[in-house]
Amino acid sequence: MPKRVDHEAVRQEIAEALWRIASQRGLDGASLREVAHEAGISLGRLQHYFASKDDMLVFASNHISELADRQIRARLAGAFPDRPPTPYELLRVCLRGMLPLDDNTRTGILVQIAYFSRAVRDARMREPARKGIPPLLTWFAELLRTAVDRGEIAADRDLGAEAMLLLALTDGLTTYTLLDVHEAERAAELVDYHLGRLFQGRADTH
Amino acid sequence: MPKRVDHEAVRQEIAEALWRIASQRGLDGASLREVAHEAGISLGRLQHYFASKDDMLVFASNHISELADRQIRARLAGAFPDRPPTPYELLRVCLRGMLPLDDNTRTGILVQIAYFSRAVRDARMREPARKGIPPLLTWFAELLRTAVDRGEIAADRDLGAEAMLLLALTDGLTTYTLLDVHEAERAAELVDYHLGRLFQGRADTH
Repeated sequence: MPKRVDHEAVRQEIAEALWRIASQRGLDGASLREVAHEAGISLGRLQHYFASKDDMLVFASNHISELADRQIRARLAGAFPDRPPTPYELLRVCLRGMLPLDDNTRTGILVQIAYFSRAVRDARMREPARKGIPPLLTWFAELLRTAVDRGEIAADRDLGAEAMLLLALTDGLTTYTLLDVHEAERAAELVDYHLGRLFQGRADTH
Repeated sequence: MPKRVDHEAVRQEIAEALWRIASQRGLDGASLREVAHEAGISLGRLQHYFASKDDMLVFASNHISELADRQIRARLAGAFPDRPPTPYELLRVCLRGMLPLDDNTRTGILVQIAYFSRAVRDARMREPARKGIPPLLTWFAELLRTAVDRGEIAADRDLGAEAMLLLALTDGLTTYTLLDVHEAERAAELVDYHLGRLFQGRADTH
């Protein structure tokens, strides 16, 4: 009987090897050979899963998005065990989850940057990078709409624009955190400042 | 008599070679040898100017910042030949100048991203990347202060926070432009939307 190979487990091991390399020395110079070595498998076996470094980066990027998503859901469940979170609370936890406030998230962001610096020059690589963005923006805009209905956000705000600005400024603040312009906690304060202005009608801010 | 070498001209040629490579295929894989070839000089001569690829990236990044700065000043001089621009006009031209609205600026941003993706993992590379940020933020905050004095911005705004948010959201919008989430013109509209809310007391917006 042939040995059954758990392909998902192998992919997982490869993802974790990529993660370690990314956190130690970045992915720019990492060859498929080095990743295979770090994962403890042969180059041939690695190539069975990923034909190129780009394929591997796409996989790693998706993997990180899933991990980040799971972590944010876990935080929400932990922070609000008794009642559903308000739109403000949901957005705040979600945006904070995108900031490099802990080592794990920071490493994930470094992998995403390695991927992003390829995607900006290669249209084929951009597709996986951007496919998660429209649903996220739609979800943000729906949360903002609920907050308008609750009287927490002024009715004259353009919610599509506000959703995109939330995402863009959180990403921009992450960039400046990684460049040591400010601490991650300062980035989180600035997100709170922006949310506070947006949700001016929230009962607990007055 | 020995031939006088115009070192600045050689550096300029190297910067232009880097620019062409960045716009065509990015800098991640570009070796010093390839850059020397593109610039039409020997590897030895290139190494006389730059000992490593990192040194070259620092130079290229500074060079692009200077070009961008010069371009923004020229635009301001062209747009307001008869009177000094208002704080709103200055900020708007400056922030638009950071968006990839034309091919030249787009290429400059791609070089900056190549540099940035190195800087996030290497503290030595971060210093040149971030040194221009605090003076820029101080200048933004001063413009905002003048606008508060003119009654254009509400007095309860935190101007240091607003300055950082302007920079962060413009960078974030650039990221999503390069990932094809939106067009550069949409990014410019969103900057205008944000500025419009910030400068709610501007006479010409009512």
